[in-house]
Amino acid sequence: MNSRRSSPSPAGKSPAAGGSPWRASAERQRDRELKRDAVILAAAREFNRKGYHNTSLDDIAARLEVTKPTVYYYVTSKEQLLFQCFVAGVERIRAAFRDVRQTQLPARERLNAVLRRYGEAVASEFGWCMVRAEEQDLSPAMSRHIKALKSEIDQGIRRLIREGIQDGSIEPCDPKMTAFALAGALNWIAHWYREDQSLTGAQIAAAFVTVFEGGLRPRGSGAQLTARAAPRRRARRPATAVAR
Amino acid sequence: MNSRRSSPSPAGKSPAAGGSPWRASAERQRDRELKRDAVILAAAREFNRKGYHNTSLDDIAARLEVTKPTVYYYVTSKEQLLFQCFVAGVERIRAAFRDVRQTQLPARERLNAVLRRYGEAVASEFGWCMVRAEEQDLSPAMSRHIKALKSEIDQGIRRLIREGIQDGSIEPCDPKMTAFALAGALNWIAHWYREDQSLTGAQIAAAFVTVFEGGLRPRGSGAQLTARAAPRRRARRPATAVAR
Repeated sequence: MNSRRSSPSPAGKSPAAGGSPWRASAERQRDRELKRDAVILAAAREFNRKGYHNTSLDDIAARLEVTKPTVYYYVTSKEQLLFQCFVAGVERIRAAFRDVRQTQLPARERLNAVLRRYGEAVASEFGWCMVRAEEQDLSPAMSRHIKALKSEIDQGIRRLIREGIQDGSIEPCDPKMTAFALAGALNWIAHWYREDQSLTGAQIAAAFVTVFEGGLRPRGSGAQLTARAAPRRRARRPATAVAR
Repeated sequence: MNSRRSSPSPAGKSPAAGGSPWRASAERQRDRELKRDAVILAAAREFNRKGYHNTSLDDIAARLEVTKPTVYYYVTSKEQLLFQCFVAGVERIRAAFRDVRQTQLPARERLNAVLRRYGEAVASEFGWCMVRAEEQDLSPAMSRHIKALKSEIDQGIRRLIREGIQDGSIEPCDPKMTAFALAGALNWIAHWYREDQSLTGAQIAAAFVTVFEGGLRPRGSGAQLTARAAPRRRARRPATAVAR
């Protein structure tokens, strides 16, 4: 959301400490960004709690214990706030793509790393905004912007799948349908995670990647035989049929 | 949605043809059910087109070229219509569970059959209502009803996964997380299918089941070796790195 946030601040610990006016300015800039991020996080939490349409800038100001004009100092509208919440989540996935680009891992491992970060992002406070922003009667310009960012993520996943098929680390498949299946499973986390937080976002993401990677069909020499033998085994164990 | 619909009608082709008043009554009943199904389908199409909150019973009546009182003859409220659209989709999945229960196939094949029908249902006119009904400010009673039906489907998928682990046709996994991943991928079809209908619902469902079943990791003896060898192969082909 904010490329400067992850850089170490060039200023000292206190705005008054530096002798240079530029250092103080950088510190003020950093302070503004921290406050802006707090406004965005508060908005994400209110949108999660009450829904986008039922949330007002007053609610967000109240949560932060500031006035509405203070909120307006950081964002120009509720729509822009929703967009910034969307970007805050999506940026975690974009960062994952950048990180794996630095590595020489097989494409499947790079894809898994991205999917894990994707799952964690969707299970974060920004998850609802990530998967629902597009449907909230946005202006055409903002809607286009969101679509473009979503398309970038989708294309990035498809590209890693194609690279994996090329480098032999991914079983040949339809990259588009596979990307839709993987992203869909992860996006859906935002629908159920608030009601069932028995696992952390990282644990869910890891469990999903295990399923995506291994598939349901057993591996190893006995797999096909076992599947074919199953009906006979079932017939010999009527308890299973009763349990169904 | 309507258990009688799939049974052959006991009446003749024309209500006037039968000698028995019961046959005429059965025919009227069937006629009423067909019209009610038409109302539900029209509602699903309007909800897809305009959204639930922006759709009125007048819109649905207009689509059917009937009056609003005619619509009210079949359903008591817009909320009930949404619920019936939900049920119409979910019933296809419940029917799939019933169908596979009659077979002696290994559990993974029974699961695949259910997932294919699930995907087709979500890509149908009822898909939006299936995945979004719960969020539309419903009455508590209706909300509970929808949750109960969703839970039944979820539990059915988990049960098939557990049975597959038992009969050896499914790789040991966490049944709950696996069910969430599979259902999530399928539910998400409702989000993108209207904008991208290049494949039929059946084709998408089949592609998804292939991914779920096989997983991304290649099968066969060379799979691990290939994955480990990949970085070296990539280094020898700089074109891939450039394309990234």
